[in-house]
This record gives sequence, C-alpha cells and structure tokens, in this order.
Amino acid sequence: MIETPYLLFLGDVPDQLSAKVAQGIKDWRPDNAVGQFRMQNCGATVGLADMSLEEAKQAGAKTLVIGVANRGGVISAAWKDVLVEALHMGFDLASGLHNLLHKEADLVTAAKNSGCKLHDVRIPTVQYPIATGKKRGGKRVLPVGTDCSVGKMYTALALDEAMRARGMKSTFRATGQTGILITGAGVPLDAVVADFMAGSIEYLTPDNDDDHWDIIEGQGSLFHISYSGVTLALIHGGQPDALILCHEPTRSHMRGLPDHPLPTMEAVRDLSLTLARVANAGCEVVGISVNTQHMSEEAARTYIDKVEQEMGLPAVDPFRHGADKLAAAIEAL
Amino acid sequence: MIETPYLLFLGDVPDQLSAKVAQGIKDWRPDNAVGQFRMQNCGATVGLADMSLEEAKQAGAKTLVIGVANRGGVISAAWKDVLVEALHMGFDLASGLHNLLHKEADLVTAAKNSGCKLHDVRIPTVQYPIATGKKRGGKRVLPVGTDCSVGKMYTALALDEAMRARGMKSTFRATGQTGILITGAGVPLDAVVADFMAGSIEYLTPDNDDDHWDIIEGQGSLFHISYSGVTLALIHGGQPDALILCHEPTRSHMRGLPDHPLPTMEAVRDLSLTLARVANAGCEVVGISVNTQHMSEEAARTYIDKVEQEMGLPAVDPFRHGADKLAAAIEAL
Repeated sequence: MIETPYLLFLGDVPDQLSAKVAQGIKDWRPDNAVGQFRMQNCGATVGLADMSLEEAKQAGAKTLVIGVANRGGVISAAWKDVLVEALHMGFDLASGLHNLLHKEADLVTAAKNSGCKLHDVRIPTVQYPIATGKKRGGKRVLPVGTDCSVGKMYTALALDEAMRARGMKSTFRATGQTGILITGAGVPLDAVVADFMAGSIEYLTPDNDDDHWDIIEGQGSLFHISYSGVTLALIHGGQPDALILCHEPTRSHMRGLPDHPLPTMEAVRDLSLTLARVANAGCEVVGISVNTQHMSEEAARTYIDKVEQEMGLPAVDPFRHGADKLAAAIEAL
Repeated sequence: MIETPYLLFLGDVPDQLSAKVAQGIKDWRPDNAVGQFRMQNCGATVGLADMSLEEAKQAGAKTLVIGVANRGGVISAAWKDVLVEALHMGFDLASGLHNLLHKEADLVTAAKNSGCKLHDVRIPTVQYPIATGKKRGGKRVLPVGTDCSVGKMYTALALDEAMRARGMKSTFRATGQTGILITGAGVPLDAVVADFMAGSIEYLTPDNDDDHWDIIEGQGSLFHISYSGVTLALIHGGQPDALILCHEPTRSHMRGLPDHPLPTMEAVRDLSLTLARVANAGCEVVGISVNTQHMSEEAARTYIDKVEQEMGLPAVDPFRHGADKLAAAIEAL
C-alpha cells in the first residue's frame, strides 16, 4: 500500500500526454492528491494547486508520486534534487517508471537516512501463491478487449464510479502500473513470474461479501500474440462472474502487430466466455464498452446503436456517456 | 548452453523416482553422459558406469549435472564436499533445483576461483524480447494437454526420435527444467516474467529451414487454472503448424485442483485450434498421445482404438508403442 494523500510530481515534461498517470489520479481519485509539483519549463498541468514540497507537507501529503512518463522511463538528473529533498523532508516516493527508484544509489541512501519508502510499482514486492481455482465469495467483473490499449482500465474505473453511484459495493482492482498509482495498491501483472500470474489475481481479489463486486483491471487481449497469456491468467485467476467486451472501432490492426487484423467482437465474446467458464461456469458477457475517441459524436452514436442491435447487449462509450448502462447490466445479473 | 558430456550426480537419494532428471538424460540423450556419480547409501541408478570425479574427468566429462530432486529441492550439506571438489577440478555444475547454486556462497567462491560455471536452469539468464508474432521459416509442432503432467515432454522427445528415424529434420526445444538439462539448452518458461513469455518462445524457435521441425515441449493446459496463461503463451509464441493432443485417461480431476474435472479431448482440440490459428492460420491437430501407464496392455489398446475412431485422428501411447504414427502424421502434412 502506498500512503495517501499524494503530491503529484510533474517534473519538467514537455506536454500533457506525458502526465497521464497524474491525470488519472486527478480524474479518478481526486481525494488522493493535495496538489501538483511542477519544475520550471513543465508543459503539463492536471489542474491542481501548484505546491512546493513544504506547502504539500503542510497540507498533509505523505507520498511524492512521479506522475509522468518521460522518454525511456528514465529518472532524470534534473529531477534528482527534488526527489532527494522530498525524501529528506519525510515523503515516501512512488514511481511506475521502467528505471527503478531502487536502482538509484542517491535515492536509496536518502530513503534509508530518513526512514522513508521507495515504491517501485513496476515490480512485484509480494511472493504470490500458485492459483488454486477455489471458488471465492463475492462477485467479479473483468473487461476483455479485442486489442491492447482499447480502454479497459478506463472502463473499469468508470464502472466502479457508476456502481458506487447506484449504491452497489465495488472495488477497482489494479493490475497495471497506472492503476496501482491511482488507487495505491494492486498487482503489476506484466512483471509477475509466469507460474504465479493466476495466483496473483486470486490474491488481488480475495473472498468478499456476497453482494460485493471486484472490478478487475484488464490487460492485453486473448488475440494479442505478445500478451495473451497474461490475459488468460487474469480470466482464470479472476474467475469472473461477468465480462465486458472492450473495442476501439478504428484500429486497422492489433497494436504493434501490423500483420494481425483485429478479431470480431463475436469472436472475443465466444472465446472469452469459453475460457472464463473453465473457472466459473456461471460467467456471462453483460455489456460492451466502445472507445469512440476517434469518431464524431454522431458516428459514435450510430456505431454504438448498431453494436447494441447486432450483439444484443448494452453498449456504451463510458468516457462520452458514462458507465451507468454497464452498472445497470451488472446489477440486473 | 551447458557443456556436454555430463557426469550425472545421483547423490544420496533414497529411491529411483528421485533420479528422474538423470534417467531422462540417460533415456533421451545417452551420448550426453559418460557415467554416474553415487554417494554411499544412494538408492538410485540409471544404469551407467559408476565413476569418480577423476575417472569422469579422464572420460572427458565437462559438467557435473545434479540429476536428482530431493525433498524441497535443497542442495544438501552432504553433497557440498563433492560439488566443491568438482568445481576445483574444473567441472561446471548444472542444476534444476529450486534452491539455486548461485545462492550457495561456497559454490560461488569455488566456481570463481576455478573459472567454472554454475548453471541454474530454473531461472532465465536471457533478457527475452516481447513477441512480435512475425511468421518465421520452418515448421513447429506443440503437444497440448487435457491436464498438466500427462506426458507432453515424453511425447515431444519420443516424436523427435521418431522423426529423426524417418530422416526428417527436427529439434526438441525444451521449455522446462528437466528438458533443459536433458538437451543442454532451452527456456525455463515457468520462471519467465509475464510480458516476455511468448517472446521467449519466439526466441527458442527461430527462423529455420522450410523442412525443419521444432518440437516444442508443452507446459500446463489451457484448462488448468493455475498455468493456462503459460500454455497460451506457448501456443502464441510457438505459432505451431501442428498440435498433438495429450491425455491421461485415468485422471479423476485436474492435477492439484480437486474441484475441476478434466475437459474432453474435443474441447481441448477446439479451443487449442481456435487459439493457435490466431498465430498461425494453417495450424492443424495431427494426432493424439495417450498416456496409458495406469492401464493394462489390453485396456490401453482398446482405449486407443476407440479414441482413434471417435476423434478421427491417429492415436498412440508413445511410451508403449513408439511415436512413429505421430511422426508419420506430421510427415504427411
């Protein structure tokens, strides 16, 4: 667990896109952040109050979160002065960058001296068990995609919000670095050793109240050669009661694989259900999340209506239109 | 690559079953071993000449292979004197035990002093790439099982032998610790980090002659909750042209999962083919390998005949009857 609230470190990144992680925290867990810290020349903002380390400390911040991705995931020399000072002042540090805080000698030393923690959410710190496949109490829903990066995390976070708005009990369960930083906990599934993947998801989504829903962040796609094994471990470890199909209609091929066309939504539905029912015979596909970011409002509406009719399932773009339709479908189960 | 030939270390294990790895080397790559080394009270033999370290050195042995599994995968204190002496004499050491040679300070020191290598085949030493899904030259065949431990490695090794006997070009590609020790190379897939699983199999089975077959050692099962993600990474990274279904008819439930019944062979055939065709549209199921070790000769014959008729595919127990029928099916492709 990463201690909240955070101060969001935006460093000196040139543009808004580089601040994706900080933006996600601001959008989904605004109570987790007291403000943002920007260096000179920073080209990004997430719209929170600019604070010095001292001001953030006064406001109760416990952890300085590196909320940006720079080229190559590097912890730049320009950032070091701020990070070391933050450690001296008693902040923990948290990062999802490829280059680890733990590999930076000056940060390790400073953390040791001040008794502060370095959280590298890119790598697991838990020795996960082998999956047992035993039926657990509570319910689970998992978004599965026609491809990688089609909006599965966004769908899960929006669904969590919509279910709470309906008074349902739900918990978003992060399986990727951004999700872990947003919520302060989770499993960095892509960095888990093969034999323990499914077990890590059982660990992440334990026994719970009968009317509680874990909303598990999806990863990869069963049809994406590079990461399909990760997706299947999620399906089998998560033993979901409900699946949500996620699709981005303008993709011409699988992300990073120019020779591989996208599967149909029907193919993803059928294959995902067949596999999910190995772990949970009662699993159902309950709805469709369409990522229409590259479509006009009219084209999006037309497309979503068509998908609803063809698939016989509620469909929605949760970013444009909210996720309540999906929450309703889950409540109706 | 582990340097051959080996001296097989049987230590002081109490029974034959504990010498499974050494037995596999003796059975499948007899040319890789010059003899066996047994301590007092050793209850196992693989039928090779007993040799001292000195005699093995004279016979040309390069590596002392720990060919046994003891309780907990521990490198026992009783073994240490022999292992340290072997390093001093210039042997490399190789082990597939859970406890690593590299974690034993005295072995690390001895290896350093003598310039010898410690091979822990349980963990990867290569930084594997992310899978690209690009079509590679040459052909590949993969055994897929209704469950774990149904004979997939045995099937692959027997098939390799049968294909060579027919004059076909083939290479057994190890994906587990025993297979790696038998052949001296491979990928310890269960210990690879999630994101690189499929890439490790692409790395293991690179471009090759058009008429060359890689025979990939299978792992897990698509229907085994704990390891299914590993199996799917094998299918997608291996982009097999041919699959062989492996089954053990007397299992009452999935190995280690008492609540999970075995799937039918038809279900494994259909699901495996659907997934394999994502990576290689031309993939076919070519035959069935039945593990009849718990059946009488008559019951085995009857069962295999029935399976052949019902499935319309050549079926055989490669241990009892050889794998030539499967090799013929692959040659006929």
